[in-house]
Amino acid sequence: MEMFGDNSCPPPCNTLGFLQKNNSLDEKGRLAGQKNLLSCDNSDRDARFRLTETDFSNLFARDLLPAKNGEEPTIQFLLEMVDILTNYVKKTFDRSTKVLDFHHPHQLLEGMEGFNLELSDQPESLEQILVDCRDTLKYGVRTGHPRFFNQLSSGLDIIGLAGEWLTSTANTNMFTYEIAPVFVLMEQLTLKKMREMIGWPDGEGDGIFSPGGAISNMYSVMIARYKYFPEVKTKGMSAAPRLVLFTSEHSHYSIKKAGAALGFGTENVILLSTDERGRVIPADLEAKIIDAKQKGYVPLFVNATAGSTVYGAFDPINEIADICEKYNLWLHVDGAWGGGLLMSRKHRHKLNGVERANSVTWNPHKMMGVPLQCSAILVREKGILAGCNSMCAGYLFQPDKQYDVTYDTGDKAIQCGRHVDIFKFWLMWKAKGTIGFEQHIDKCLDLSQYLYNKIKNREGYEMVFDGVPQHTNVCFWYIPPSLRGMPAGEERREKLHRVAPKIKAMMMESGTTMVGYQPQGNKVNFFRMVVSNPAATQSDIDFLIDEIERMARDL
Amino acid sequence: MEMFGDNSCPPPCNTLGFLQKNNSLDEKGRLAGQKNLLSCDNSDRDARFRLTETDFSNLFARDLLPAKNGEEPTIQFLLEMVDILTNYVKKTFDRSTKVLDFHHPHQLLEGMEGFNLELSDQPESLEQILVDCRDTLKYGVRTGHPRFFNQLSSGLDIIGLAGEWLTSTANTNMFTYEIAPVFVLMEQLTLKKMREMIGWPDGEGDGIFSPGGAISNMYSVMIARYKYFPEVKTKGMSAAPRLVLFTSEHSHYSIKKAGAALGFGTENVILLSTDERGRVIPADLEAKIIDAKQKGYVPLFVNATAGSTVYGAFDPINEIADICEKYNLWLHVDGAWGGGLLMSRKHRHKLNGVERANSVTWNPHKMMGVPLQCSAILVREKGILAGCNSMCAGYLFQPDKQYDVTYDTGDKAIQCGRHVDIFKFWLMWKAKGTIGFEQHIDKCLDLSQYLYNKIKNREGYEMVFDGVPQHTNVCFWYIPPSLRGMPAGEERREKLHRVAPKIKAMMMESGTTMVGYQPQGNKVNFFRMVVSNPAATQSDIDFLIDEIERMARDL
Repeated sequence: MEMFGDNSCPPPCNTLGFLQKNNSLDEKGRLAGQKNLLSCDNSDRDARFRLTETDFSNLFARDLLPAKNGEEPTIQFLLEMVDILTNYVKKTFDRSTKVLDFHHPHQLLEGMEGFNLELSDQPESLEQILVDCRDTLKYGVRTGHPRFFNQLSSGLDIIGLAGEWLTSTANTNMFTYEIAPVFVLMEQLTLKKMREMIGWPDGEGDGIFSPGGAISNMYSVMIARYKYFPEVKTKGMSAAPRLVLFTSEHSHYSIKKAGAALGFGTENVILLSTDERGRVIPADLEAKIIDAKQKGYVPLFVNATAGSTVYGAFDPINEIADICEKYNLWLHVDGAWGGGLLMSRKHRHKLNGVERANSVTWNPHKMMGVPLQCSAILVREKGILAGCNSMCAGYLFQPDKQYDVTYDTGDKAIQCGRHVDIFKFWLMWKAKGTIGFEQHIDKCLDLSQYLYNKIKNREGYEMVFDGVPQHTNVCFWYIPPSLRGMPAGEERREKLHRVAPKIKAMMMESGTTMVGYQPQGNKVNFFRMVVSNPAATQSDIDFLIDEIERMARDL
Repeated sequence: MEMFGDNSCPPPCNTLGFLQKNNSLDEKGRLAGQKNLLSCDNSDRDARFRLTETDFSNLFARDLLPAKNGEEPTIQFLLEMVDILTNYVKKTFDRSTKVLDFHHPHQLLEGMEGFNLELSDQPESLEQILVDCRDTLKYGVRTGHPRFFNQLSSGLDIIGLAGEWLTSTANTNMFTYEIAPVFVLMEQLTLKKMREMIGWPDGEGDGIFSPGGAISNMYSVMIARYKYFPEVKTKGMSAAPRLVLFTSEHSHYSIKKAGAALGFGTENVILLSTDERGRVIPADLEAKIIDAKQKGYVPLFVNATAGSTVYGAFDPINEIADICEKYNLWLHVDGAWGGGLLMSRKHRHKLNGVERANSVTWNPHKMMGVPLQCSAILVREKGILAGCNSMCAGYLFQPDKQYDVTYDTGDKAIQCGRHVDIFKFWLMWKAKGTIGFEQHIDKCLDLSQYLYNKIKNREGYEMVFDGVPQHTNVCFWYIPPSLRGMPAGEERREKLHRVAPKIKAMMMESGTTMVGYQPQGNKVNFFRMVVSNPAATQSDIDFLIDEIERMARDL
């Protein structure tokens, strides 16, 4: 496990900067010619990198590896990029920087101070490329900033980031063990661990990482159909009766999208009523199943949401599972957002019954802070993923290889090539341990409860639903002073509907913070605060509240 | 565009290494304590990084940002990672290193010299994390190595790599302009450029980057169905007659997978006969359309492959387009592999007629050397992607934002969250220009012709099809000396079938090179050589041939 053995090079840090920080440009020029003298020879380990001043204005992509003598400019170019990126990382966590520097599409398209998005026939110098990279970051959004609360995915995990850098350097493909041996095994072990946390016996079952929760949910509908009507694979939907799917009116739209894409039709995705907290009412599910059967339709699939997008609601899985067993339906749990709570001994009870599901979606890129994209579909029955999706393309997945080809994952995916999403997650798990994820999740839930306690009785706030939120979602209206005396009614509704978008626009234009808003059902626009950002603290919650109040003062 | 202004810090390179390379360990310890003296203060630009010796054995993920005082360990940890990665990059291009260090799954699972893939409850030190990263690379496959020819995607483009590092640092999501303003615009401009190269008037139309060619092809089938039978979106496949899709027997299996997934059924994916070069015979298409209609089925969609997976064949698009127009069918061109040839004035004629397609799949991550994943589905008719896929989820895509929300892309995708695949491609295009891609493609095709010329009449080689390959695919059998005298017949076929797998296994175990093999139709296993790797030269082709002959000597 040696890192710096006795023979390692002394640290190549910038004493040059220290010794010569007042050098003239001439001196700099002279030093550039010296750089080869500075290399250190050490046969025991790889040479450590050396950042030198390189003039990139006459260098082009064609001068980099695999070009002859391309090694030095390649390393220097990458190090310059790292310089840009590490500075970005530092600023991301710095509360004195803005979350974003907002510009309208037409402004960016017209070109900002030399930042030209247009592509051309001729190459740009590497100097310009580095400037383009700085500008790309400058006009983007710092999703890891402690005051970025806009999405379910937020934060910038350093281990995950390092994992992504390695993943892109390895630049391989998950479809065979042959070209991704380590990553394929990491995926297998990690999926097993996730199935253990779900509670399936011995972590048995199947699964795959997919490009996001919507695709994971699509997988669940596909395999449910394959389980009950395998002939649809070859004969199409005409081989099955009219199949219906059930999901909460608060569930993610991807179930409906899957219904449309897979040939069920959105009308056959039946929305279930929820209680005031956004949780499915089991009796409504049973009534709608009976109703569908009476119409001659065939209920196939029920989605229970564990952590809904807006309210963060957890459907009662056990009660839903009872009904699924009674009517012999596939039970899927969409834990894209809430699945992470399985890592917390304190909060995992919210998913009680998840072990009774046939399939589970779980996105580590949301509540667990893994960089985008990282989503898993987990399946209780082994082999069904391959049964559903395999086309046995012999030209891609040869059965006569010298290794055990059951490790090849390609034929159970709906994709062919598949990005390596596992490594960053595996590395984070190694670096934090299960316990590290648990601490992160508990902390986020504590923070959201802090917010809830702070505003539930505060003047100007109305909660969208009563009681302590189940997840980190805190949904509220802010009532500006001008609306506080106004009687309930359409006029107040219309005015209130416009408040959150206005405050949000001000936030973005001032760049100080970002939080989401949306309407839901007949409820006008309200803020949905979520906490998944490990950088956020109570002071950031306080800041958000102050900002909302400051910005709404004159609305 | 200033990079190093007059006030910039002098270069922080390793003169320390030069001046003190014989330092004792004591000296090193003393220097470590000095590091803060070495920082350079400069208010005009960001401080450049300084690599210091850091003891990571007592540091953990929890000590990194956003932890208090986490900045220094964070930067040092990332720089150590960069040290590992830049060494890997150098070795990738070094012909004296192996392409891979092969181990069987059970060997890696049992643990290699302290490389333990299992996850645990407790965290590992950052020192161990760095070792894990080294090991991950050590036991992987160098897909950028000049002698890696195994996949359609190969090579390690430095600009693309830098682009991926930036993308993962920005860690955002393509679904709204709100959180990915620059990337959303880059995608829009790049898709337009690609449509211009296809030849659609003014580059008009629509499109989106998707997680790979299989999903892009799935999109094409979905939008074709939506175009002709929009009611399927709401009512399901029962609202349509029995629809059939046509694609070559040499086409990628993703068309069949789409047929299965979307509810058509694989039996309704009709395979078209090809000529001896693997190109669709247009008369066969017309005959099968007529046959399907006579059976009462409704032909919907034809896929023409531009660059088939095994033979690299280009279907005759113009003749297929004539038939599609005659029968009013959707024409999709699967240019996942061959689309890149549109960038070459010399080779783009192979896609003549592509401008008549209704949709085109084009994967820059294949022939254009962009890191995985980067695949586009391009559509001639504007608005149809959104029409097909939108669910108008107000809680995700608010219409009342302060900016022009037509830039939000989320509702036209089948995904919700979507990884940023555009930046690396945009950056490569900027850095190389169209002309750089053209040179790369022309060079790869030249190299494959070199290989073809070398082996077509060489003793021991049989070409799978005659004539100069259309793409970089060169398909051949190698006949070991022991089989050369054997009469044609089942015994020879069986023996020959086992030759390529044996040679491939030897290649992997010796780690010297990798090339793919597969059977096709009634043809026994043969090698499929492809060139997309910018690092490959004629000497690498020579090396491959020598290796095959050396390994097969005693078969």
